[in-house]
Formats: sequence, structure tokens, C-alpha cells
Amino acid sequence: MRLSRLFAPTLREDPAEAEAPSHRLLLRAGFIRQVAAGIYTTLPLGLRIVRRIEAIVREEMDASGAQEIRMPITLPAEPWKATGRWQLYGDLLFRLTDRHGRELLLGPTQEEVVTPLVAGELPSYRDLPVNLYQIEWKYRDEFRPRYGLLRGREFLMKDAYSFDRDVENMRGSYQLMFDAYRRVFDRCGLRYVIVEADPGQIGGGVNHEFMARAEVGEDLFVECENGDYLADTEAATPRPPEPADRSDLAPLEVLDTPGTPTIEALASLLAIPEERTLKCILFEAGGATLAVLVPGDREVNEPKLERLFFPTPVRRFEDEDFARHGFVKGYVGPQGLAGDAVVLADHSVLGGKDWVTGANEADRHVSGANAGRDFRVDRFEDLARIREGDRCPVDGGVLRIGRSIVVGHIYQLGTKYSEPLEATFIDEDGGARPYEMGCYGIGISRIVAAAAEQHHDDAGLVWPKALAPFQAVVILANHDDERARTEAERIYEELRQLGVEALLDDREVRGGVKFADSDLIGYPVQVVVGKKGVATGTADLKLRSTGERSSAPLAQVAQAALDLLGAAP
Amino acid sequence: MRLSRLFAPTLREDPAEAEAPSHRLLLRAGFIRQVAAGIYTTLPLGLRIVRRIEAIVREEMDASGAQEIRMPITLPAEPWKATGRWQLYGDLLFRLTDRHGRELLLGPTQEEVVTPLVAGELPSYRDLPVNLYQIEWKYRDEFRPRYGLLRGREFLMKDAYSFDRDVENMRGSYQLMFDAYRRVFDRCGLRYVIVEADPGQIGGGVNHEFMARAEVGEDLFVECENGDYLADTEAATPRPPEPADRSDLAPLEVLDTPGTPTIEALASLLAIPEERTLKCILFEAGGATLAVLVPGDREVNEPKLERLFFPTPVRRFEDEDFARHGFVKGYVGPQGLAGDAVVLADHSVLGGKDWVTGANEADRHVSGANAGRDFRVDRFEDLARIREGDRCPVDGGVLRIGRSIVVGHIYQLGTKYSEPLEATFIDEDGGARPYEMGCYGIGISRIVAAAAEQHHDDAGLVWPKALAPFQAVVILANHDDERARTEAERIYEELRQLGVEALLDDREVRGGVKFADSDLIGYPVQVVVGKKGVATGTADLKLRSTGERSSAPLAQVAQAALDLLGAAP
Repeated sequence: MRLSRLFAPTLREDPAEAEAPSHRLLLRAGFIRQVAAGIYTTLPLGLRIVRRIEAIVREEMDASGAQEIRMPITLPAEPWKATGRWQLYGDLLFRLTDRHGRELLLGPTQEEVVTPLVAGELPSYRDLPVNLYQIEWKYRDEFRPRYGLLRGREFLMKDAYSFDRDVENMRGSYQLMFDAYRRVFDRCGLRYVIVEADPGQIGGGVNHEFMARAEVGEDLFVECENGDYLADTEAATPRPPEPADRSDLAPLEVLDTPGTPTIEALASLLAIPEERTLKCILFEAGGATLAVLVPGDREVNEPKLERLFFPTPVRRFEDEDFARHGFVKGYVGPQGLAGDAVVLADHSVLGGKDWVTGANEADRHVSGANAGRDFRVDRFEDLARIREGDRCPVDGGVLRIGRSIVVGHIYQLGTKYSEPLEATFIDEDGGARPYEMGCYGIGISRIVAAAAEQHHDDAGLVWPKALAPFQAVVILANHDDERARTEAERIYEELRQLGVEALLDDREVRGGVKFADSDLIGYPVQVVVGKKGVATGTADLKLRSTGERSSAPLAQVAQAALDLLGAAP
Repeated sequence: MRLSRLFAPTLREDPAEAEAPSHRLLLRAGFIRQVAAGIYTTLPLGLRIVRRIEAIVREEMDASGAQEIRMPITLPAEPWKATGRWQLYGDLLFRLTDRHGRELLLGPTQEEVVTPLVAGELPSYRDLPVNLYQIEWKYRDEFRPRYGLLRGREFLMKDAYSFDRDVENMRGSYQLMFDAYRRVFDRCGLRYVIVEADPGQIGGGVNHEFMARAEVGEDLFVECENGDYLADTEAATPRPPEPADRSDLAPLEVLDTPGTPTIEALASLLAIPEERTLKCILFEAGGATLAVLVPGDREVNEPKLERLFFPTPVRRFEDEDFARHGFVKGYVGPQGLAGDAVVLADHSVLGGKDWVTGANEADRHVSGANAGRDFRVDRFEDLARIREGDRCPVDGGVLRIGRSIVVGHIYQLGTKYSEPLEATFIDEDGGARPYEMGCYGIGISRIVAAAAEQHHDDAGLVWPKALAPFQAVVILANHDDERARTEAERIYEELRQLGVEALLDDREVRGGVKFADSDLIGYPVQVVVGKKGVATGTADLKLRSTGERSSAPLAQVAQAALDLLGAAP
């Protein structure tokens, strides 16, 4: 391909609207253009990257025994009402009405299509397992689309759905996908972690997120500095602190603390660190009052609390609850709780003593409050939100919060969709049973952005060769030099003969523009053919990832480029 | 691929809802399944065919210098309002509103996206020409979707758009596409005609339709029995008949013809053929009255009439027009017209004489009416709708009406979209000019259906090898015979080694089911490995297109299948 004939418009300036590096660089390098908020056209160079990712995904999906189909984008509403997602998705769903008044939606995922499809065709346990996948555009009407391809309203996904006769087989299908996903992301050259979200999550099953590390990523995970622990921020369980030395406890004293309903105001008034104070947060669960204790500098992890009491719903006290139970909001302390309240404390409370906490009177707190002596704790549980610096449950190492882009998510659905959709098969014993399902997503357009986030520098993109739109560029540095042009053409042809997907930058622009564009677009290998070099019988090479330069005699430069490509990441 | 693990559900019975053969067979053979009216899921076998067509289209588009991009499906309304198509498309457009109240549509075509894209990036005449294409799903909310993939609401198209600096270059881009389209449809094995629609069509430019012959097709064309004339039914111009011998004219007589306001009633009452009567149809054009004369057995081709008077709008008389001008509807004859009416006669009127026509009185007609003597004709024009049996303008041969499916349509747009969208480039002289555009569509999912219409028999589909989902099937006729199974596996592997895309039918079902399914699905070559044959050291072969059977020694059967495939269409 000749760049003079390629629709690859680069921008000299950073686009003002782009915050994330990938967004900025994909626009500047001519890979994408915006059509509407969160909706993009993919230009030729961008499409080449998409196609490479698609090819990797297809190969690994096919190798795992999954079969490609293609489901529609415009979907009838009825099955979505049956599963409850017509309501659940709310404004995220693009909805429309056809000319006959029938409700349709644009598919954000496809359980409601694939489940009836399989149920209509594979009625016997003998037909199972089956795993159907597609690569197709998905739709979510994001409130605030941003970061280019990272949070778009129209995005390309591979979605797969497995159907099994029982849980054990479903787990086998899940494991096949788990392994295939690792191969996909390895081949894409991504640095990623695999995090298991809490298996006890309400209403859900085992699921794993494949998270590509990225500073700009909005998806957090927890990891140990020593690399032996990884977890979802919601599910992470830090090692409890050493219990405080309780040999010398201060007495309980009441303090006048006017106007301190918040921890911040209290710590400021008393000139103590927030961690010296004790929060006592009240909840209601099935008619009972729960008091949850965490140090003042920590937050309650409400999803964990909810799971603890599941299926009883748990809700935080509202103003009328305080009034009804006679609590003074902002001044609640555990030492004044009635006997029927359940007192739960996070493990971190074990590490402190002589707490400052609410006196259960307006504008008053107490100091020197100690568990056992001044208040009771019914249960110690893991209830505080994780944070940087907490200790690893495996080895006590420091935990860090990592930022990432979720590029894959696999899920053991069980019968979550087959039951409401009445999708059953006839089992060996003649009984009708709902399929045990799994679903498996890969964000194809997100991988483009995640790879750009991980592989760029100040000059532009640095594609790993597995994803690069072209593996090598031959830059004709002096387009008006006849010998240089002849040599550039020859080297370009030779590279193609060697099986290298090469691009010839034959544009009639200055060499400097070509060098800058080549760095910006990020081909792994650059071959520079200029007037000076040709006069002495050489051309220059550059490995984009390291910036390492070399030169080779004209007759050997194609082979040298091939060798360099072999060494490229 | 093993059929036992392929999601390829065939149906024993014809689906009741399918009228067209392609619809029926694509459902029965397990290529597609309906999700909603005109909206389908493509199953693995169907998707393999789609991919083959896509590959052919991509190769030919790329070879012609066009570049692939991917445009979004959800599009903002504004550019569509600028071109007037937001209104023009009416109910055919799927419309939706996003959560912020912005109007969107699902793209039925993409001029409104690609034109601003190019204008934003290629501002100089030096950047031209460029031709951008995509293969993507398109949306039309058809009033009555039908015939499966032939008239769907969601359909896969290749759409390309060329941008040139002037009309001459635009014609060059158009010719490149014309040639590429021929290669595409030739490679797909379609029987098709290329018909030029009337270049003088209102508001349009030169355009060609690529029409695949099919009995079920809704798109008509005209062709000479001798193969030297092809035309759009609207634009076809038959050879005028020989003028009637006027040496012996009957006298004009008034007839009582009660209750005969229609030609049918009149001919029946008088017991004469309809072609002996003369219709006089009245129109209004810019205040003037037009009387159009055609023989009673013919219809006026109104689009032709409209083009004759363009840009003055022409409309047929309504009841109040008859009343206002004193005409008796159903009894109008040309001999009673006022001097200011323009009398137009189709050329076919030249071929008749002694016409029976209206007497301009209720319940009366005249006989023996003759042009020149009893009424005047201001102009003879080509104004009758074409029909079977008309004469070819080239050689006088018999014209036939052909039925077809339009699989490609190319169009010289000129500045139809670049002007309203203010899409201009800077020409050599420094002036801003709108791009001269062309647009080029291929219906990918329609080709699947058109090929199925052209290539099937009573037993099922008969795919040409260029499109077949698999080139050969190895049928293990007796799945419980160990030797047959071993040989079938070996032949299947050998075929794959020979580069044949083969499928092994290893299902544990009766041989008869496998034979029927193989015929239904339509692989070009069948290899049957059965217990009896294996015992005598042979396997059987069948060429699906002719039904021709042969057998070969087991050691040579793979090579024999390859040879048979070479001979397959």
C-alpha cells in the first residue's frame, strides 16, 4: 500500500476534546473520527487494527470449539421484558418503535436472542454443549460517553454464549473460554490482570474480569506489591491489623464538641487524626437495627454488608429512622445502643483503642471508648472499603489500587436467562431442564484503545507487531530524488516478497513530516531511504519501540528490516 | 469441521411463512433464523457464505483502489435534514431519540456521513480522487418485509462513495466500479443483466442496476429475445409499429354504449378486442390540459410523461377536473377536445385505425375514429408502458419482461449531496468547489438469497463452489461401522491436506438423513463412505449440480473428489 493513496489523515495538533492518550492519539494518527458523542467512524488504519484483533479472537474462539453466528442489532422488546432487562437497563437502552408501533431496542448484549435460538433448535441433552459467538456492534446510551473508544455508545464486541446440561459441564465450558481469553490477550500484547469478582455476589455467579492496566482506566482492582494477590476492589479482603495493646486503657469521658456531626469537623475541633475516631453507621435489615463500626478514616463497604445479610435487604438509616429510634444523627456512638441492635465491627477496629465516638447527644462525643468495656461488638467482619496501604491477606505485603480497562468479562450465568425465557432441553431422564449458561465478552474496539494506552510515547503510538496496521514503513525521505525513489520502491517490493505487510510513504511532503507521521502512527519498523544514504549505498532502520537506529547496505536492508521485525515486541 | 459439532439445524418440513424458494431453503437448510419481521440471525453455514461474498467484494474493491472504512449505524439527524432525506425517507427510516433528547436514525445508506468526513480531511484537489467503502448492516423499516433476505429490514451491504474534482474524473471512478462489479458478480456465479436506468430521470444522474435473474424477483427489466437490447421497464423504448394502412377508412359513427366507462366493459359490450379501442387519458400540466392517447389494451407510462414536461409537474385529472372542464369521465374521446388541449399519442397509435373511443357524452362512444380526419395529434411520443411482445428498437425482435433481484446499483451522484452538505475542496485555481460524487452499493445478504434462487432444485440448494459453505462433504453413511468410520475420517483429513474445505458428516443418524441434508445444504461435492463400499474397497462420489455419481478406490477417492470439484460450477 502507498501512503499517497491511503486515506490516513493525521492531525498536527492535539484535538481539544480528547483527554485520554489513546483518544488523542487515535484521532491524531488518523485511526478514527467522531460522528456523534461516543460514535465513531473507523478509518483505514484503524480498521486494519480492528481486523487483526478480530482475526486473533476468531482463531482462539474457533480453536476452543465455539461457533460463529451473527445476530441482529435491532431486537424485539418482548424477551427483554421477560428477563426484566427492558426495565433494568433504563436509559442505557437505545429504544425505538417501528412503523407498526412495535417496540425495538438496539442490542447491548444478546442473551435474549441466543437463548430462544438455541432452545428452538437443540432440544436434547445430546446436542449439548454448544457455544455460539459473534463479533458485532453493541449499543449503550451512556450518559457521558468519553475517552474515545473506551466508553463509546456504539462499540464492537465479541460475545459468546455457552449452553450446557448441568453446572459441572457449564464450568468446563467456562474454563475453555477462560483459557482462550488468556491466549487472546497474550497475543494482543496486552499487560493485564485477571480478577475474580466475589462469587457470592447477589444474584450472580462466578465471573472473571480481564483488566488491561492503564492509568486512564476507570476499573479498579487491588493487588499486592509482591504480586501474590489480586482482587476486585469490592471483594478484596485485607489482612486484619495486629490487635492494639489494651493493657493501658484511658477512661471514658464526655466531651463538648459543638457543631461536629462529621468526622472531619470532629477531628479538626479536637486536633486529632481521623483514624482515632470511630464511626458508628446505622442500617436497617429485616426490621433489626445494625450498627457498623469502622475507624473514622474508613468507609463501609456496603455491598459486602448486603452480602452478609443476603437475601434480607439492608438499607442505610434515613432521617426518619434516626428520629424514630431516638438517635441523634452525627453523634451516634456504640456505647449507647439498645440490646436488640446488632453491632458489627470491621476487623480494623481491633487495631485501635481509646476511641473518640458519638455520645448519643447533640454536640457531644466521648473519648476513651473501648470495645468490651464501654461497648459490645457482636461480630467482627470484613466491612471496610479497601484502600492503598492495606495489607495483603496472603503475605502481609502492601496492597495497591490498580487502574485498568476491562477488555474481557466472562460469567457463569447458570439459569439466570434460561429460566425466565423458558429455554429448556430434554435431559437423559426425559425431564425438561433449563440450560446452564455462560456468557463471555471481549471488547474489540476497547482493545484498540487499551493497546494504545499501553503502547505509546511522546511521539505517538508504538503498536506491538501483532496489532500494527502495517508491520513496516518504507519512508522515501527525499521524494524528488530519483535514485532514492527507485531504491525505496525496490525495498518496498522486496519486503512484500518477504511476506512483510509494508507501507510505502511516497507522499510529496518533507522528510520531517514523514518521520513525525511514522512515529505518530507507530509502525514497529521504519526504513528510511534518503538521498545521502543512497549515494553511499545504505538505508537507515529504526525500531519504533526502542528508538534504536541502524543502517544497512541497500541490497540487505529488506532482510535487516525483517530481522528487526523479528526482534520487535 | 465435524457436522456433529456444528450448529446447523435443518428442518424436515417447509416453513409455512416462506413463499420464495430462497427463503424456504435458507430456513430449512439451517442458514438463517428469523428474530422479528425482516430481521434474521445468520447461523454458521449462512455466515460462511456471507464471508465468502465479503471476501470477493473486498478483493475487487481493494483491487480497484477503493479503501475500506467502517461508519457507524446510529447517526445524528442533522445532516439528513440538510439533504432533505430526514423527511424524504418517511416511515422507511428507523428513528430514535437518545437520553439527551437528540434525534438519531439507523443508517439506510451513508452519504450524509462520508461526505462530511471527506470534506473535513481532503481539502485539496491534489487529495482526489478517493473512494471509501464499507461492508456494514443497513436499516430500512419496510412496510412489508418479505422473502427472507430479499426484502429485510436489516440487511448487509457494501457501500462505496467516490469523490472527484470534476465530472470527467467522476465518470472514470464510476467506470472502475462498473468493471469491479462485473468481476464481483461473475465470481459469485450469478446470472445477471446490467441495465441502465433512464439517464434523464428526474433529479438523478447516470446509474446502472446489476440484476440477478430470478422468477421471484420484484425488479423488472426488458430484454430482446435476441439478446441485443436490455432496459429498465420505465425507460424501455420499443420500436414503433408499422403505420396502419389508411387507404380504406370507416366512417365515424356514434354508438349507444350504456354503462361502459371502462375499456373492459366497452370491449365486452361491443364484442371487440380491447386493442381496437382508444384510451384518451387527461392530465394537467402547468395549467394546460394534456390528452394522452394509447390503445385500449395499454397503459400510460406516467414517469415518461413526467420527464417529457419536466420541470413542470404533471398530474392525472381528478373528478373535479373532469367536472370543471366539462368532460364525462369514462367517455372522453380525442375528437371532442378543445383547441388549447395538447394531444399526445403513443407511437403504437400509429399502428391502428378506425378506433372506438369516447363520444364525450355519457353512455356513448364512437367507432371509426381516425387521427387526422376525426381528431388531431400534436405529438407522437413514446408514452405507453412496455409489455411482453413489444418489438426491440435494435432489431425488431420480441421483447420480454425479465424478473430479477437487484444485487448492485451504481450511481453518478454529481453534487447532489456535496452541495447541500457544503462539502467543498479547493481546486487548482483556488476556488472552492463541491466534490463530484458517485455511490455504489452491493447487497451482500441479497446475493446469498439471489444465489439460492438461481441455484436450487427440488432436493435443496446447489451452491456454486465460490460461495458454498463447504466445498465437499464426507458422509459417513453407517456411523456404527468401524471400518467405514476410519476410512471417512482418513478421507476427510486427506481432503483437508489437499486444501479442500471439507465437512465430515459424522452424526449418529441414519444414512438417509445425511443424504437428504447434504442435498438440502448443497455442498458441491459429496463423498459417501459406507459399509458396503468399504468392504469392496471403494467410496462413492456425487456432483451435486448434475447428480452425476461415480465411485473410486478408497486410496484415490480424495483426489477424485478434488477433480470433481474442479469440474463443479
